[in-house]
Amino acid sequence: MNGNNIPEKTIERLSEYRRTLLACHKQGITHIFSHVLAGMHGITAVQVRRDLMLIGFSSDTKKGYDVKVLIDFISSILDSKTAVNVAVIGMGHLGQAITKYFNGKGLKLRITTAFDVDPEKVGRTIDGIPCHHMDEFEQVVEDNDVSIVILSSPTRAAATLVVPIINAGIKGVLNFTSTPLNFPQGIVVENYDITTLLEKVAYFVKESEESSN
Amino acid sequence: MNGNNIPEKTIERLSEYRRTLLACHKQGITHIFSHVLAGMHGITAVQVRRDLMLIGFSSDTKKGYDVKVLIDFISSILDSKTAVNVAVIGMGHLGQAITKYFNGKGLKLRITTAFDVDPEKVGRTIDGIPCHHMDEFEQVVEDNDVSIVILSSPTRAAATLVVPIINAGIKGVLNFTSTPLNFPQGIVVENYDITTLLEKVAYFVKESEESSN
Repeated sequence: MNGNNIPEKTIERLSEYRRTLLACHKQGITHIFSHVLAGMHGITAVQVRRDLMLIGFSSDTKKGYDVKVLIDFISSILDSKTAVNVAVIGMGHLGQAITKYFNGKGLKLRITTAFDVDPEKVGRTIDGIPCHHMDEFEQVVEDNDVSIVILSSPTRAAATLVVPIINAGIKGVLNFTSTPLNFPQGIVVENYDITTLLEKVAYFVKESEESSN
Repeated sequence: MNGNNIPEKTIERLSEYRRTLLACHKQGITHIFSHVLAGMHGITAVQVRRDLMLIGFSSDTKKGYDVKVLIDFISSILDSKTAVNVAVIGMGHLGQAITKYFNGKGLKLRITTAFDVDPEKVGRTIDGIPCHHMDEFEQVVEDNDVSIVILSSPTRAAATLVVPIINAGIKGVLNFTSTPLNFPQGIVVENYDITTLLEKVAYFVKESEESSN
């Protein structure tokens, strides 16, 4: 799945570094030291340097990294050459939060299409995104060249989405429902249940309290 | 941070196993084999057995794991003995999605309080949760014994929340804004930016396409 053998965690951090660097760039900051970038992410400078070494980035570090150059370098690793169209399945609160969040960020990834089954939503344009009925999924995906879907539907609907997603030739799935989904090889899936994230925080809080007692 | 040295990824999977096991239990399934549980999560049976070994769970595996016993065992690892009160900061679409999602799930973690600055929301009860003004944060946290907060505020507000969170004695933060936040030792923080999750999926899709060409 990962030709260059860059660890998943490094990919996540690269995405995070880039977002921080973009914010710095916007503020007119031209150079940044590894320990400053590290501090902003609560990690060590060694970790930052290791991640950048893994992707083959090297620089004269006397003034720190050139912010613009590093942004472009990370983008060359993370981004496709052309824009990638993303669809949201399920335009409830979560789907709308995600859509609002992405709109106008000028990313290579753009949410272009939404799906729902609610007659109040189907046929409408929500936050600038046309919302289609799931019955039209395959056709709309083809017409709009969608390659990635975000699942923010009710959990009970999740399992019914697997076959349409496979049939439509979707390549990547970001699944926020509580049902972990499996897809055949060739389809990338990330299952992120918010309960898991919260239970993890709660566990480490508990551990930290127990170890300090 | 982790007294028992259980890896973060194992904690995440334990939370996921438990959710699957609860669904099985609801359907009247009393026993489950490790390879069946593994298959439902798209991982290997070896991984499941290794995770359960790490937490000291052993069982006569001829009939598979006893679903109820395993649920209780995982709960004894993950959960606090008493209920943990959680507050949501930012009751926009994301905050409301999270609240709706948790309500009535009967978890040890319960969202009891919400905060916002929008006059349309402050003073109202949204999805059964009273919404307070951020100005009252410290007092309300104390009165309601809140120990964990979920940040679903606009990103521009994130940095302003650090000091109130520290002052109020919050122990754990699940941060969904785009600004990674650092807290002093003793406060557990997990930064989850949805952009990162989506960029990660997109990266692995790109890699998989390039390696199959």
